[in-house]
Amino acid sequence: MTHNARDGSTTDSWRSRGTSEPVSERSIEQVDAWWRAANYLSVGQIYLLDNPLLRRPLEAAHVKRRLLGHWGTAPGLNLTYAHLNRVIAERHQAAMFIAGPGHGGPAILASAYLDGTYSEIYPDVAETEAGLTRFFRQFSFPGGVPSHAAPETPGSIHEGGELGYVLSHAYGAAFDNPDLLVAAVVGDGEAETGPLATSWHSNKFIDPVQDGVVLPILHLNGYKIANPTVLARIPRSELESLLRGYGHEPFFVEGGFDREDPMEVHRRFAEVLDVVLDRIAAIKSRAAAGDTGRPVWPMIVLRTPKGWTCPEVIDGVRVEGTFHAHQVPLADARDTEEHTRILESWMRSYRPEELFDEHGAVVPLVRELAPLGEARMSATPHANGGLLRTELDLPAIDDAAVVVDAPGGRDAGATGVLGSWLTEVIRRNPTTFRIFAPDELASNRLQAVFEVTERQWNAETVPGDEHLARAGRVMEMLSEHQCQGWLEGYLLTGRHGLFTCYEAFIHIVDSMFNQHAKWLNGSRELPWRRPVASLNYLLTSHVWRQDHNGFSHQDPGFIDHVVNKKPDVIRVYLPFDANTLLAVSEHCLQSTDEINVIVAGKDQEPVWLGTDDARAHCARGLGILPFAGSERAGERPDLVMACAGDVPTLETLAAVSILRERIPELSVRVVNVVDLMRLMSEDQHPHGLSDAEYDSVFTTDRPVVFAYHGYPWLIHRLTYKRHGHDQLHVRGYLENGTTTTPFDMVMLNEIDRFSLVCDAIDRTPGLGERFAGLRQEMQDARVRARAHTREFGEDAPEITGWRWPAVG
Amino acid sequence: MTHNARDGSTTDSWRSRGTSEPVSERSIEQVDAWWRAANYLSVGQIYLLDNPLLRRPLEAAHVKRRLLGHWGTAPGLNLTYAHLNRVIAERHQAAMFIAGPGHGGPAILASAYLDGTYSEIYPDVAETEAGLTRFFRQFSFPGGVPSHAAPETPGSIHEGGELGYVLSHAYGAAFDNPDLLVAAVVGDGEAETGPLATSWHSNKFIDPVQDGVVLPILHLNGYKIANPTVLARIPRSELESLLRGYGHEPFFVEGGFDREDPMEVHRRFAEVLDVVLDRIAAIKSRAAAGDTGRPVWPMIVLRTPKGWTCPEVIDGVRVEGTFHAHQVPLADARDTEEHTRILESWMRSYRPEELFDEHGAVVPLVRELAPLGEARMSATPHANGGLLRTELDLPAIDDAAVVVDAPGGRDAGATGVLGSWLTEVIRRNPTTFRIFAPDELASNRLQAVFEVTERQWNAETVPGDEHLARAGRVMEMLSEHQCQGWLEGYLLTGRHGLFTCYEAFIHIVDSMFNQHAKWLNGSRELPWRRPVASLNYLLTSHVWRQDHNGFSHQDPGFIDHVVNKKPDVIRVYLPFDANTLLAVSEHCLQSTDEINVIVAGKDQEPVWLGTDDARAHCARGLGILPFAGSERAGERPDLVMACAGDVPTLETLAAVSILRERIPELSVRVVNVVDLMRLMSEDQHPHGLSDAEYDSVFTTDRPVVFAYHGYPWLIHRLTYKRHGHDQLHVRGYLENGTTTTPFDMVMLNEIDRFSLVCDAIDRTPGLGERFAGLRQEMQDARVRARAHTREFGEDAPEITGWRWPAVG
Repeated sequence: MTHNARDGSTTDSWRSRGTSEPVSERSIEQVDAWWRAANYLSVGQIYLLDNPLLRRPLEAAHVKRRLLGHWGTAPGLNLTYAHLNRVIAERHQAAMFIAGPGHGGPAILASAYLDGTYSEIYPDVAETEAGLTRFFRQFSFPGGVPSHAAPETPGSIHEGGELGYVLSHAYGAAFDNPDLLVAAVVGDGEAETGPLATSWHSNKFIDPVQDGVVLPILHLNGYKIANPTVLARIPRSELESLLRGYGHEPFFVEGGFDREDPMEVHRRFAEVLDVVLDRIAAIKSRAAAGDTGRPVWPMIVLRTPKGWTCPEVIDGVRVEGTFHAHQVPLADARDTEEHTRILESWMRSYRPEELFDEHGAVVPLVRELAPLGEARMSATPHANGGLLRTELDLPAIDDAAVVVDAPGGRDAGATGVLGSWLTEVIRRNPTTFRIFAPDELASNRLQAVFEVTERQWNAETVPGDEHLARAGRVMEMLSEHQCQGWLEGYLLTGRHGLFTCYEAFIHIVDSMFNQHAKWLNGSRELPWRRPVASLNYLLTSHVWRQDHNGFSHQDPGFIDHVVNKKPDVIRVYLPFDANTLLAVSEHCLQSTDEINVIVAGKDQEPVWLGTDDARAHCARGLGILPFAGSERAGERPDLVMACAGDVPTLETLAAVSILRERIPELSVRVVNVVDLMRLMSEDQHPHGLSDAEYDSVFTTDRPVVFAYHGYPWLIHRLTYKRHGHDQLHVRGYLENGTTTTPFDMVMLNEIDRFSLVCDAIDRTPGLGERFAGLRQEMQDARVRARAHTREFGEDAPEITGWRWPAVG
Repeated sequence: MTHNARDGSTTDSWRSRGTSEPVSERSIEQVDAWWRAANYLSVGQIYLLDNPLLRRPLEAAHVKRRLLGHWGTAPGLNLTYAHLNRVIAERHQAAMFIAGPGHGGPAILASAYLDGTYSEIYPDVAETEAGLTRFFRQFSFPGGVPSHAAPETPGSIHEGGELGYVLSHAYGAAFDNPDLLVAAVVGDGEAETGPLATSWHSNKFIDPVQDGVVLPILHLNGYKIANPTVLARIPRSELESLLRGYGHEPFFVEGGFDREDPMEVHRRFAEVLDVVLDRIAAIKSRAAAGDTGRPVWPMIVLRTPKGWTCPEVIDGVRVEGTFHAHQVPLADARDTEEHTRILESWMRSYRPEELFDEHGAVVPLVRELAPLGEARMSATPHANGGLLRTELDLPAIDDAAVVVDAPGGRDAGATGVLGSWLTEVIRRNPTTFRIFAPDELASNRLQAVFEVTERQWNAETVPGDEHLARAGRVMEMLSEHQCQGWLEGYLLTGRHGLFTCYEAFIHIVDSMFNQHAKWLNGSRELPWRRPVASLNYLLTSHVWRQDHNGFSHQDPGFIDHVVNKKPDVIRVYLPFDANTLLAVSEHCLQSTDEINVIVAGKDQEPVWLGTDDARAHCARGLGILPFAGSERAGERPDLVMACAGDVPTLETLAAVSILRERIPELSVRVVNVVDLMRLMSEDQHPHGLSDAEYDSVFTTDRPVVFAYHGYPWLIHRLTYKRHGHDQLHVRGYLENGTTTTPFDMVMLNEIDRFSLVCDAIDRTPGLGERFAGLRQEMQDARVRARAHTREFGEDAPEITGWRWPAVG
């Protein structure tokens, strides 16, 4: 029994039912009434504009003109929701519901309406005929709600528009919620996606003691949009084998075919659900008692006809149980009287008069199936994670920071230093923070965290394994999809986290990123949705340092992808050394409702700023590096050398040191950009600079040579409206990649120190002729560096040994 | 027995071995010799700069300074390759080899060297001591070859840098190659990725009669970079269950642990391989005889120690059989004499003196294990698909085209019209062209193709199923990863295809696109790699027409993603009606070594150009639409209204019709862009316009109001260096999305006709004050349109009924 601090209520999670008596017929009738009510509301949302209780004969005018909803998956979702209501209410089991199948919106909305949550959150959708009219009308209607579960949908953390993430979201929700049951309905369409196919293996990463339980319910309704599904068309023995191979004990419930009485199906499903929850209770109990074996978690396979309970045949075509029931089984209910009557009799088949009272309120028989208050799956605070979120207890970065006496005076690997700080973050936040990585945590040099935690792993171990444990803060599976999905589920239920990934391969989750950004967009507009922790990406092993992996591992384009999304939710940071990485990370781990993309290096490189300077520079987001330039107080510089990213900053500073030595009269300003969004206008992005601020840093008319971490055109896209844009010359990654040394890579893309000196000469009026000799020297230096690399397979000592002149 | 037209040779595919005698000890010794030689070459590539045959004692100076390779997976790949050589040579079986595990490069290169292919393609890497020195040195070395299989690697169609696609590539290669065996080694690391996890189900989509056979070999070496693998750490019974659930009959070979004699492992593996190939032969034979059941294809699980045969323990740490063997088991072989000696004795353990003759040539014992000529897996033309590619026999588009008497005089759904043309393409090219779709072919309105073909499907069928057959040209599974992977495999082995997808969800394969683009980049630079057919995307159900799906389905950013890749391989087309879609498609299906992104509408919309005009316009790529503007011959226009994409073109033309009526004195030029890359400079992209050409269309100083299909900043990024860029005003998708009507969507993003008229007034000097009234009318029209939509749930008749004024 667990005490719930929020409302003083108690839950008795993981109770066994305590009897083998069949479920009472009264309960079954109640479940059936809920199911009919939910089905009725699902059909009503898709079809009706008016007359929601069918008090009058249905007329064409009551029907929507454009029918933009999906019926096919609704009856299965409604069945599951109804039965879960019974068991979680009986057992006082904290639970949440995640609907995987596409277009499950009508069902989830129907359930939220039936248990009263919907009207509580949206009082204009009251439990009256007028409220119900609004409820029906708004669905998939301009200005209304979408046909997928969405941020607007109470009880949801999962959109279900793009398919495949239901199980990874469910496991993310279950981590560190030991008393929570997460019921996850997997559609047999989405089951064909890659991300879903591997997410079954999440059960090797869940701790039966400290984590909650995911109950997968594979709903075989047999069809996708226009095709049968694979899992519905393999022999049952093969499907069972597959699910056992995934590590589950499957329980099959099949019914509703050939117009079978639904009451029969209810009885079977109710019995199975009790057995399954008893199994889970037993596993939990054994684990609590110290059994450390990996449990074989139960799951359910529910096979029912697609669009079950809709008209069997319409216009001579078999509809129920086929893909014709996927969207709107009855394509038009306004065109003929016959079609209007078909819709009416379909809706009346649910006997709405038994389900809603004369005012339109849900009758007690239905309402009382669900638990009360926050125990309702549509009202659980877990699905509105901001309610449960607590601030991270963050250590000061100073202890972890690198002490530097002079700019560039010490070398450090940025992510390694971050790792030390994260160690303390984990120590202080033992149950609310996790790191997710696709087998790259050590490669990305964050292994210091193993001082205080381990990788969570519940598959087999053998002697010699390192840093594996039943419970731990590090989640590693070789699947970016899993990392992203788990983290999203973890964040949306009120916790904090970090996803560290090779820069190039974060594109694997481009589309998941899109969906999360859109989710945040939507939820920010809803006052009842409380802010959740930001999704933080730490991208390293980046384009400039994929020495041995080569071209396939070189792609800095995730930033380009990210900045297409709504500015409100997007932040991009390019810390250029260990201390700026710490400062940026400290900020990001405190932020909410954003997506922070941090790109940083993992290799040894100079540390340029002390902690205070780093923090101040990162707070500004961009600014002049005072130690680096040669501009004289009160005068405008001749040239601005700008940089963003660790490698471009190093090359820029090396170029500036050459310029200062060789053209001492040249007044050079060095600008570094950490917060890329500062380049945008203040009317484009919350972090955007005003034109006056921008001009004060970049000038309005001086040449700017900008060395940028990624594709150079992004800088143009961010600044094309700025004064002096014609004077901006950007160097970056030109998709010239291969297996080679770090300096050869920058030379290949002409962002090396020698090329930058040439750019400075070429772009600054008056330098070209005077310094033709220096320019030639630079070209010669490139040739020499190249030759050295080709001969020895490593960069020349004068390159790797270069130090900022003020040092040493 | 199949006749090979290319060299007159014959293959006896799918022969049974015809004896149950054990494989001869001589054969086993030969396999072992090959294996030792391949292992030796793998180690040598990673470590050595010189002394490749160890003729002299190994010195530190012979060892590379930077060790950038991976040993862990090599011995398993080498074992597999060696054994396959035996059986395919004995059976005259056409075969290709695809190495899934990451960093398999050394192994694949070693095999190509051993069978002679490498020196044939790269004569400077001869079978001499000097050639071998070069072979070792170049590996993972600046100017050399990467550590993954890559385009440079003979016999490869699969990079294996980004993991997860080995099985989808293998099945793509097998389609329509009835005599081909595709051996696909699946790494247990990559097996954790989503794409790989679902790709096992490809066996429900292969036709045992008309397609070849994929033999998956799951290599359990137990470890990824720094973690154990999931599939190696579940009970064998569970793994077997999983693989049977995937529809396979698994055969297990385990060995090499505890320093087991490799000869024992060879004997077991040889026996299993013969059984497996006999099983396949039997399945093929039954299928040829008319058995239409889905076969349970055999597969192999090979469990060997990671890094097998490397030193067991180094510096006190257990290496062989652990993740420490993943990369370089011996981290430095130059630093101490002891380490140099460890490397030397490791390499000498393979007894190189038995494997290479005094000149450095591969001894016959080894060489003769492999088949000859193109039967060698590294020399198969299937892995250099351009050799086998034949041009598609394309019908003229005229028959399918929509006949239009006047611009906009008829409506048509563009993709539907394309579907009719594709029907004829399929009819004429029954074995070399396929369409791939994630359950969206019908939704994307290409269902006309079902007149001549079906969806290929070998899982169960039930009465009422539509358009499913054992063999067909349409491949549908609800996985964009599968569609992309299958298509890549199909193209790289010399065939043609089309991937049709919802625009928003093509981001799911962003990263696969990256890798294919990089592959094409690399292969274009290799004269021996012949051009393959382009990868064609048809993106529809696009951002402007996701009425019922809403925000999650609205994302036009794939174009932005694509244009970051090398211009040589990238093309983006935005046909704006049915006939321009036909013209673009005709072009794309004839192109090679490119990636063509076509974005088109599926809904009924006006057809603006007849076939000849469409073809001419698309050949130009962009140009003035003469019917639409009001400019007078010989005079420069006052204003340019530009557009790209079907919906923006419609809104632009509607805006222009208002301008022409209401401001008749205004000289408006209408420019449409179909080929987006034309906007780039000629020095940036092969399709780029010269500045003079650009200026002649867009002028250098007139305001340009540009209505673009996607994110507007992309147009700025493509044109920021063009004359008159300051005068360019772009409208596009601003990430304002929801569930609403088509016209409401364009209004939300201010790309509607009324907003465009306002832009024209605002941007054209002298119009602002004079036409303040018209401007207000436009704003009022927006308000009215919005109100109508909100009330009726559909667009107002004056919007949907609008026609180009010259019509009707």
